Amino acid sequence: MIAATPEPPYYVVIFTSVRTAVDAGYAEAAQRMLELAAQQPGFLGVESARSDGLGITLSYWQSEEAIRAWREHAEHSAVRERGRAEWYAACTTRVAKVERAYGFDRSA
Amino acid sequence: MIAATPEPPYYVVIFTSVRTAVDAGYAEAAQRMLELAAQQPGFLGVESARSDGLGITLSYWQSEEAIRAWREHAEHSAVRERGRAEWYAACTTRVAKVERAYGFDRSA
Repeated sequence: MIAATPEPPYYVVIFTSVRTAVDAGYAEAAQRMLELAAQQPGFLGVESARSDGLGITLSYWQSEEAIRAWREHAEHSAVRERGRAEWYAACTTRVAKVERAYGFDRSA
Repeated sequence: MIAATPEPPYYVVIFTSVRTAVDAGYAEAAQRMLELAAQQPGFLGVESARSDGLGITLSYWQSEEAIRAWREHAEHSAVRERGRAEWYAACTTRVAKVERAYGFDRSA
């Protein structure tokens, strides 16, 4: 559930979105993008949640170069265009450098 | 829904969590923390979602100093301790510097 990321520094792409009413193709594309992202060099993990109309997806990456390569991936680019046209009423992408991290896991 | 943050750079605190079965006091404390955070100097916005057991809360801040002051806020500290003891089975806090951001809002 919570991504097992390495010690900082690393990068995060924060994607927050509000969906349209259009569902056609969305679930399949979202699942495919998760699988494809996980295969990219420098991918460190992903966390995602959606409630009350707001979706948040966090993907973690080793470097800005890894983020750039994923951004330019042909299949990802095509799906992103479709997302803009069909699935999302509003969305924001933020790229950030994780400087420190801490936490606990009592379930482990 | 999506926080109207200013042009980067600014900071984000990424809090991802898995809840315990303990609900007592949680909703009230979460609501109170949102209200209290919004009153702090340097607060820029918050986004939150929870599904399939994973919660993600993003709070945006003007500076690391603002984050530190909020972290040391007495009421926030007390609630954080209670969260560790009662409400969260696992959680991770990541502090990151937002370097760029882009998006669209067709609903506006």
